[in-house]
Amino acid sequence: MLPRFSLRLDFERHRLGPGKASLLEGIRRTGSIAAAGRDMAMSYRRAWLLVDDLNHMFRGPLVQAQTGGRSGGGARLTDLGEEVLALYGATHATMTAAVEEQLRHFEALSAAPEIVPEP
Amino acid sequence: MLPRFSLRLDFERHRLGPGKASLLEGIRRTGSIAAAGRDMAMSYRRAWLLVDDLNHMFRGPLVQAQTGGRSGGGARLTDLGEEVLALYGATHATMTAAVEEQLRHFEALSAAPEIVPEP
Repeated sequence: MLPRFSLRLDFERHRLGPGKASLLEGIRRTGSIAAAGRDMAMSYRRAWLLVDDLNHMFRGPLVQAQTGGRSGGGARLTDLGEEVLALYGATHATMTAAVEEQLRHFEALSAAPEIVPEP
Repeated sequence: MLPRFSLRLDFERHRLGPGKASLLEGIRRTGSIAAAGRDMAMSYRRAWLLVDDLNHMFRGPLVQAQTGGRSGGGARLTDLGEEVLALYGATHATMTAAVEEQLRHFEALSAAPEIVPEP
């Protein structure tokens, strides 16, 4: 099996990696910071701290929390949030395509998985 | 400043990321597992555990510890260790070249660094 890789971007004072990217995806899917965090077995407080960080990394906020109203809150990605999430995914895809041959080389060098005999 | 990224490869039961790659580089440079670990502010025990993991990830060991002799031990990379370390670096370089334009896009979207006024 080809090794997989995860992408962690280091900005001057912030990081964007698979955890924050998954949280953004979850917020887009569920419309809720709390629900997105729960899907990742993350505390409500931790999800909010990550969103706060995400909202200060770029030229504007990525997540907009809606308070009140008939739905009692909820959250959605801003246009910038959609752009950053799409760019993160596209960067990962570009990398994957670029290094396919090198990943095959890693696979060829890696240890064979242990064979577990059938009982 | 362009964001930087680190590469973490996920094999079926092992991981190879920047920490283990730096340790391999340090062992090659210093000829010693202990010295390589010290350069990374890592305990002797932790450096040895990482080496043990590295030595079971691929088709053979990456690090050969030499015991005894006039130099009182020391360690070096095996041919396979050199190959894996070079492949890790080449994979990172290929990725960097492939996503340069996307990293510029991230840079353009990222928050301007705070300007600290001169005293």
